[in-house]
Formats: sequence, C-alpha cells, structure tokens
Amino acid sequence: MNNTIDILLQHRSVRRFTSEAVDDELLGQIIDCGLRASNTGNMQLYSVIATRQEPLRSELCKLHFGQCATAPLWLTICTDVARYHQYCRVNQCDEPYGNLLWFVSALVDASLCAQNICVAAEAKGLGFCYLGTVNYNTRQIAELLQCPKGVVPVIAIAMGHPDEEPRFSERLGRDAVLHSETYHVPTDDELVASHKVRDEHPFNRQMVVENGTRNYCEIFTTKRYPHQMNVAVSRDLLNFLKDSDMWDF
Amino acid sequence: MNNTIDILLQHRSVRRFTSEAVDDELLGQIIDCGLRASNTGNMQLYSVIATRQEPLRSELCKLHFGQCATAPLWLTICTDVARYHQYCRVNQCDEPYGNLLWFVSALVDASLCAQNICVAAEAKGLGFCYLGTVNYNTRQIAELLQCPKGVVPVIAIAMGHPDEEPRFSERLGRDAVLHSETYHVPTDDELVASHKVRDEHPFNRQMVVENGTRNYCEIFTTKRYPHQMNVAVSRDLLNFLKDSDMWDF
Repeated sequence: MNNTIDILLQHRSVRRFTSEAVDDELLGQIIDCGLRASNTGNMQLYSVIATRQEPLRSELCKLHFGQCATAPLWLTICTDVARYHQYCRVNQCDEPYGNLLWFVSALVDASLCAQNICVAAEAKGLGFCYLGTVNYNTRQIAELLQCPKGVVPVIAIAMGHPDEEPRFSERLGRDAVLHSETYHVPTDDELVASHKVRDEHPFNRQMVVENGTRNYCEIFTTKRYPHQMNVAVSRDLLNFLKDSDMWDF
Repeated sequence: MNNTIDILLQHRSVRRFTSEAVDDELLGQIIDCGLRASNTGNMQLYSVIATRQEPLRSELCKLHFGQCATAPLWLTICTDVARYHQYCRVNQCDEPYGNLLWFVSALVDASLCAQNICVAAEAKGLGFCYLGTVNYNTRQIAELLQCPKGVVPVIAIAMGHPDEEPRFSERLGRDAVLHSETYHVPTDDELVASHKVRDEHPFNRQMVVENGTRNYCEIFTTKRYPHQMNVAVSRDLLNFLKDSDMWDF
C-alpha cells in the first residue's frame, strides 16, 4: 500500500481543533487540489467560501448548531451558476443553467472538489468534519455569507489542526454496497448479515441503551432524522432553490 | 509536496484504455477507499455497481453515447435509500428517506465515495473519466442495471489502464472560485480577467473556430448544453425521482 491509499483508508472525522490557524499558503495549496478535480464540461459550477474571521466564524458555527466550535477554518462550498450566468451575460449568450440538471451536476462537481480538498488536508496533517447541517439552514447560511441568487450552500467543512484522536468508525463493507454487473436486492438475511458490523458494534449498542430505542435503526428514524423533520427540511430546501432561480424548468 | 498532493494536482481524465482488465483485488482495494469517505450519519446511502461483462458493458456504454468505448470497467454510483428502507422494514421502523433532503445528502455522499475511489485508482496507476451523461439517460441506465425504486444512478465512471497521455486541461483558479469570508460578486472586468485562462487557451480558441461560434461561452450555451435540452433533461430527471419514490414530501 502506498501513502495515498493509507490516507484514504485511515480517514476519521475530527471535530476538535487546536487554536493554530490554517495559514494562507496551506489553504491555497489544498484549494488548488480541489480545483483540479474532474467537473462537468470544465465549467466549474461551484464556489468555495473560506470563513476564518470573527464574528462571522462564530455566527456560521451557530447556524451549524454549535458543532465543531473550535474549528479555525470553515469552508462552505456552493453550487454556483451565478458566476457562469454572469459569464454568459458578458459574452452576450443565453443563461440556461438555473434548473435541476445543473443543480445536480454542480452538486456532484462541488462534492468532488470538496473531497479533493479534504484528502489534501489530511495529507498535510489537518483534520476536518463535513457538516450535513448545511442543508438545515441553507437560506440563513446563504444570507450570512452574502450568496447571490444561483449560489446554493451544499457542503460545509469545519477544518483545522486536530486536537483529538477520534475513534475509527465502522462502515458497511463491499458485501452491502458493491454490486457486480447489475444491482442485487439482498434478501433480508443478507441485509441483516451485512449490517452486523454497524448494528452489533459496542459503540452503537451503547447508543441504543442511551437513546432508549428498540434498535440502532430507530435512533435514526425517530431521533436524528424523523420523517416530519425530513419533510419540512425538504420543502424549505426546494423553496430556497426556487427563490434562488435554480428551478427554471 | 508529497505524493498525494502530486496525484491530486496532476489529475487528468483518461478516455482511452488498454485491453487489460481491472482485477478483483485492485477493484476491491479502491472500493474500500471509497467506503471510508465521510458520509451523512454513517448511513452510507449509496451503492456502487461495477459492470465489466459483455454484452452489459457495451449496452451501458451505448447509453453514454459510445464514450470511452474501450473502458473495461464501468462504475455506476447511485444514491440508494432502498437498502436503508429495507433496513428500516427489517427493524420495524418508519421509512422516511424518500425526499429531497436525502436525495441531496446521498448525492453528496455518493460523490465523496466516488472521488475517493478515483483518487485511489490514480494512485494505483489506473485512469478514469466521469461521464455526466448519466443524467441524460438516468431511467434507461437504472433499467439496464436493474435498480429498484429508491436507487438513482447519479455518477458514472469509465475506468481502466490508460492507453493515452491526455492534455493537462486548464482550470479557473482561486481568483475565480475562492471567496474570503463571504461571497464576492466579481465586477465584469474581474470576471473576464479570471476567465482568460480558459477563454484564451489555444485549445479552446481552436474549438471556437471549429464550432463557428462568436466565443467559447457560446459553444456551451448553443451546442453542448442549450436551454431547451437542459429543460427537457431536468423534467425527465424530476419525473424519474418521482417515479422512484424519492419525492415524498
């Protein structure tokens, strides 16, 4: 195994950071790695917002419900057709990218860029955590970061120099996730077997006790991500996409 | 610079491959790297379908309009709430993930997994190309690969041992993509300056001549991704999401 494979296989999310800043040179280097990622038509329909200064950093952290409060650097990565539409206007062309096809394409491109940034960060000794909460306060985050229409915050990363050695979290393996030739729908027995790595992990068993649920699954469906909340967030997100001129089709 | 940073900075897409297969061990190793990527709530709402056998491989290639015809390995990465909903049923829990929040969350997670796979592949000497055409024939690809409802092909990667040394494509730099603290809307002059790297590249100037357009931008807005096509594909994609029970909100 070479160094890169090791880095990828040893990844763990870091949520607590030292007070040391991420300096401009290091930030620039990992951003450059992000910009080299593959993207649709080489249009690069994304933007990266690096927030480090107070009080903005703390206000952004609040919109992520106070998670990763010690992180000195916050990267908010957005799908961005605004820049491309401006480019179209300057070139006296049509502006046809405010629709689902380009939200999806830009979302993939933004994610590939983000992951390159994160892999580079780990290679340089930094730690990071992706924050799914970006989807819960999309409108408020966009307002705080002064995003114009066509720019949608979709990925948030808290980053810095690690101040903890987090546990190595378990993952479903190839037996659950990888399909040969075509999609294979597992039998219930196969599914239960491939999920044992998660369901029977001592850490997760303890979570079941603490949450007072019947099983690990129920923590997710009733506590972390219950139906009613998913529906409300989905509606907010769709309304934001419409208000941001990303739903013109 | 260490090895990993070099790999990321030197990336170029490969579209022509030797006849050498990607063997099971190598495939397994790069997939494992993908599975270690960060994901929402450790739910891993994605699946990877590896297609190598004929005639399936060729049929899949046709749905990508014949691109990368020599690639021995095709990875179709899907957002997947079907497996999680089965897991919910087995655990007698609610099945609340067929909505926009989870399509978006799963799409990011699928992309992070995909990029880890691709970085690992390059570290191992393989080449690859992402194919945005996955969004143009989503329904047909899902049918060919026997995806059940809740499984949406969102990323396609053609992979194999490189049989070409592709050019190093130009990218917009930090001056265009990176924003400090909050989003900065560029002046038209700033935008034109940051896009010169693309607009004035000899390769792209030649494309303008060949396409007979007024400028580079117009190739995209009138030839590659015209408005009418974007609208039609967006509608098809939304209808597929609805038919796949991913629009329950």
